[in-house]
Amino acid sequence: MRAAYYEGKGRIRVGECAPVAAGPGEVQLRVSHCGICGTDLHIFHGNMDHRVRTPQVIGHETSAVVHAAGEGVTEYKPGDRVTVMPLDPCNDCPACRRGHNHICQRLKFIGIDVPGGFQALWTVPAFTLLRIPDGLSLEHGALIEPVAVACHDVRLGQVQRGEFAVVLGGGPIGSLVALVARHAGARVVVSEINPFRIRLLRGLGFEVVNPLETDLVKFVNGETGDSGADIIFEVSGAAPAAATMTEIVRTRGRIVMVAVYAKPAPVNLHKFFWRELIMCGARVYEREDFEQAIRLLAARTIPFEKLITDVRPLDGLQRGLEEMEKGAEVMKILVDCAS
Amino acid sequence: MRAAYYEGKGRIRVGECAPVAAGPGEVQLRVSHCGICGTDLHIFHGNMDHRVRTPQVIGHETSAVVHAAGEGVTEYKPGDRVTVMPLDPCNDCPACRRGHNHICQRLKFIGIDVPGGFQALWTVPAFTLLRIPDGLSLEHGALIEPVAVACHDVRLGQVQRGEFAVVLGGGPIGSLVALVARHAGARVVVSEINPFRIRLLRGLGFEVVNPLETDLVKFVNGETGDSGADIIFEVSGAAPAAATMTEIVRTRGRIVMVAVYAKPAPVNLHKFFWRELIMCGARVYEREDFEQAIRLLAARTIPFEKLITDVRPLDGLQRGLEEMEKGAEVMKILVDCAS
Repeated sequence: MRAAYYEGKGRIRVGECAPVAAGPGEVQLRVSHCGICGTDLHIFHGNMDHRVRTPQVIGHETSAVVHAAGEGVTEYKPGDRVTVMPLDPCNDCPACRRGHNHICQRLKFIGIDVPGGFQALWTVPAFTLLRIPDGLSLEHGALIEPVAVACHDVRLGQVQRGEFAVVLGGGPIGSLVALVARHAGARVVVSEINPFRIRLLRGLGFEVVNPLETDLVKFVNGETGDSGADIIFEVSGAAPAAATMTEIVRTRGRIVMVAVYAKPAPVNLHKFFWRELIMCGARVYEREDFEQAIRLLAARTIPFEKLITDVRPLDGLQRGLEEMEKGAEVMKILVDCAS
Repeated sequence: MRAAYYEGKGRIRVGECAPVAAGPGEVQLRVSHCGICGTDLHIFHGNMDHRVRTPQVIGHETSAVVHAAGEGVTEYKPGDRVTVMPLDPCNDCPACRRGHNHICQRLKFIGIDVPGGFQALWTVPAFTLLRIPDGLSLEHGALIEPVAVACHDVRLGQVQRGEFAVVLGGGPIGSLVALVARHAGARVVVSEINPFRIRLLRGLGFEVVNPLETDLVKFVNGETGDSGADIIFEVSGAAPAAATMTEIVRTRGRIVMVAVYAKPAPVNLHKFFWRELIMCGARVYEREDFEQAIRLLAARTIPFEKLITDVRPLDGLQRGLEEMEKGAEVMKILVDCAS
């Protein structure tokens, strides 16, 4: 069978691969689709070489069909349609012992620390699986994982109906957060500078502000009667966003920190004190977020699929990453791992 | 009667003052004691000249006896022992309308924006008053306001029995936070560099770490089995503390931002994401915090009075501020406004 290997900075090789049989407690999957994530781009850039051994199969936004169940696995049988929650926690560290095993201090992230889903046959622990219900296609099933991220962010942000939310950064995760927050009843404004993303988000009915053209602080304070927004999702990781976030949030408002910052950024801590602001980090997801993502996708009321730019064969992974790298007109690219 | 006026950077003048009669809804107080706050030191430094008109009577940590009640005031009569919650909100701005009028967007802080308590006779709105119960002396009653700050900080931090708390900065507010957090059942470690404060805090039974001598990150992680502390109170306002706070807090742990930062400080936002940290600002107090402070002081189970370094006459205000300025061996200085 075939697999796409990350072989070092900027290099993906698609080649033959010997399938790994399912051991006890494991399931061998026939991968259907695997989305390309911003994290895969970080890996492609070589930024995560301290975690990714080469050559390694990456990818973690998957839908699949069970091919074989290992010893002791009774819950799944060949033919079952599933997605993978790609977290393998130690269940023993202080974070795990407090019930936060999704951010285990020794977490193995499947598709980064161990082989991922850009391959035809993939063996994973059975505990990582969740069923894809009838009526949700395998193609759209590959969106479950990123939608679960957005569900986690919106849940931790405690978005309430009627609230004013600002999403800083309208890439794939920012767009999903915007969709899920709007579904939760918020009025959502997205701040984004990329013209393709702006068009796409406006096509989805969002108010989009390009902060290079419009003063976002004036806009938000004007729209909220000088109150500020109830909640900010910082998804961009850009230092100007870290400066802006405290200027557009209301007294006792919340900032959800979803972005990955390469280094410490200046933050207006006085504003935290003065307005009693609240900031919480939000990373990956918990099982209930995966379950909510599956429900939301199966219900078909949110147009998540409009974020899918293209579906490519395994051989298209390298080009997909290169397009993302240069800011081409792509939002979410899926890879058909069977082709 | 006499009053102590702030007359500009570094200058306090004690002189005669015409009492202001109590208007409708107001009460004229005979001030007993007024503590010197770090904010008074900021004013003394000239840092708040944009808010304080000169000459102006400052001071806001007060105990008093009602001297005369203005028209319409039925709840208080001459002789009643009271403290002042020195907040005069507009009750109309977005923050007030959401119920956060303690941090009103147009707040008048009594003793900063309008005349304060370093005078013999002081007229304030009746709604600012709370009664000092029998058994709590007027001298200790002047501690109600700063203790209310600590009660607010500990309440917003949601300190639970058995938690591990670190207080960054052991000045008057940090020490009060440490006392209230310990009373709430936390194990409290204080980080402080000033030898006088370290001795005083150790005398109160606290574990104190001098971060110039001991690696605080190693200490906290060692003491918590590599988990990190449950809660951090950042009371110092020093940039190294903003860097340390994210290194010593556990997964999903809380940081309470109590300090006043003069400018934005670098913050490890990646750590917020990675460990799903939570930070909230905490400023002044709400009425329930004042009520809790009164209960705690009246109960006499917490040795708040050990923080009182000295009681001075009005003429001693200038010297008290100068001693605080140069880091002399003072924690809380009270001024006897009748002397």
